[in-house]
Amino acid sequence: MSEAYVTILTSDNYLPGALVLARSLRELGTTKKLVVLTTDLSDASTRFLGEVYDELIEVETLESSLFEQLHELNRPELFRTYTKIALWKLTQFSKIVYLDADLLPVQNIDELFDIELSPETKIAAAPDSGWPDIFNSGLFVTLPDLSVYSGLIDLSEEPNASFDGADQGLFNEYFHSGENTPNRWHRLPFIYNVTPSSGYQYSPAYKRFQKDIKAVHFIGVNKPWLTRDGYGFASSFLPGGGGFDTLFEI
Amino acid sequence: MSEAYVTILTSDNYLPGALVLARSLRELGTTKKLVVLTTDLSDASTRFLGEVYDELIEVETLESSLFEQLHELNRPELFRTYTKIALWKLTQFSKIVYLDADLLPVQNIDELFDIELSPETKIAAAPDSGWPDIFNSGLFVTLPDLSVYSGLIDLSEEPNASFDGADQGLFNEYFHSGENTPNRWHRLPFIYNVTPSSGYQYSPAYKRFQKDIKAVHFIGVNKPWLTRDGYGFASSFLPGGGGFDTLFEI
Ligand SMILES: O=c1ccn([C@@H]2O[C@H](COP(=O)(O)OP(=O)(O)O)[C@@H](O)[C@H]2O)c(=O)[nH]1
Ligand SMILES: O=c1ccn([C@@H]2O[C@H](COP(=O)(O)OP(=O)(O)O)[C@@H](O)[C@H]2O)c(=O)[nH]1
Ligand SMILES: [Mn+2]
Ligand SMILES: [Mn+2]
Repeated sequence: MSEAYVTILTSDNYLPGALVLARSLRELGTTKKLVVLTTDLSDASTRFLGEVYDELIEVETLESSLFEQLHELNRPELFRTYTKIALWKLTQFSKIVYLDADLLPVQNIDELFDIELSPETKIAAAPDSGWPDIFNSGLFVTLPDLSVYSGLIDLSEEPNASFDGADQGLFNEYFHSGENTPNRWHRLPFIYNVTPSSGYQYSPAYKRFQKDIKAVHFIGVNKPWLTRDGYGFASSFLPGGGGFDTLFEI
Repeated sequence: MSEAYVTILTSDNYLPGALVLARSLRELGTTKKLVVLTTDLSDASTRFLGEVYDELIEVETLESSLFEQLHELNRPELFRTYTKIALWKLTQFSKIVYLDADLLPVQNIDELFDIELSPETKIAAAPDSGWPDIFNSGLFVTLPDLSVYSGLIDLSEEPNASFDGADQGLFNEYFHSGENTPNRWHRLPFIYNVTPSSGYQYSPAYKRFQKDIKAVHFIGVNKPWLTRDGYGFASSFLPGGGGFDTLFEI
């Protein structure tokens, strides 16, 4: 069975991220399949995606109703990130590496497919820099598994299941096993999912470990493709060299 | 041989922190000795410390000359934090838990003395929330050891030994063993050294895990005792109930 990188696009406005992501993976020489799960996209987006992804899979939108938590997070647009649960239904793949559309690999990361998972440790992910005992849900290695799928669906229906209202809070709750037992997630090095932070300790460490970084993750509302410079940057990766204007037409 | 909590005071202006720290440890029922390493303190500070610490040990100041890095960190006042190296000379203690003066335990943490260290893993500490693959040097468990002491002194004399110019960069360099080998530090849960951060992921996780928190750490230039409210808070812990004015007299 095949292994795949999978990302997700629940809205057109993350398209530049998804295109840059696929381009980077290919330019870094991946040998794996590139898959994107889609919901509610325009035909233009679908066409663009078709040029860089091996497979587009339309899935149903799964929405969080924890609007209060999402509001406190200042990220109401994350209400559809529960759609990531669909990943565990992709049993046509033996193993997947999930990547957010705002994640940018800068070195080949195919070695992530070699990570051994087990019934006790069903997911591998990097620590979240806001609270390093939970994982950041922007990159993870996992095995599609229908029992995990139903477990996550069931959990998502419990009141206040996710502590941040989005997928990260839900998945950490599911793959966490409580105070005195070991974590049920395999801790990847932070270099696989580097999220810039404003803490004064970040910048010297960043300089020190910069050469080891495998992927950066543009978390937060200010995605690089929303600025003029970032747009130019992203569009240079477009199939056919599209450019700034092509993207604006979408 | 005895076990001790050890903190350090290289200047009078961190005194409120050191007093609150000792008070909290006692109120939380510690059975361990409380020790403070001092350099350059006023007589008034020494007297106050004498009322809450079991032992004051005057040590030599060890200074970092990496002013450029400290300047970039915006923390020039950390140039004397190399003085922490003196901890490994305290061979009168069989095991120490080092705590920064700006760290506030909120639950008894004596269980930290039960952590097993080894020649491969000579230190236990919690991840730094800016870069979670290094440890925060505000709390750690270690064994005094003269060979570690000289190793750290030797390393500190190499050019650019510390990537942040302070003790955290130096210690992480020393207790780190490079890319493909496991870390040489034992990872404590973040709840032992919780540093607030401005990332939007911090606050929901904080709420979720708040009840488990063992100690909070007021990193950065804005220490709680530098604000009027914080001053009041700190001074309520003073021996004899000292109060705001007593502290200002120092
Ligand atoms: O409006 C949206 C919000 C999210 N996403 C997808 O969900 C992921 C998670 O959201 P985001 O990366 O913004 O969360 P953050 O990493 O900032 O917490 C994105 O990378 C996209 O893959 C999307 O397609 N459209
Ligand atoms: O002027 C100073 C600076 C530091 N310290 C001691 O060194 C520790 C480390 O400094 P700080 O806590 O300010 O560093 P941060 O945790 O903010 O990185 C302090 O907690 C004190 O114990 C001190 O006594 N005086
Ligand atoms: Mn993201
Ligand atoms: Mn500190």
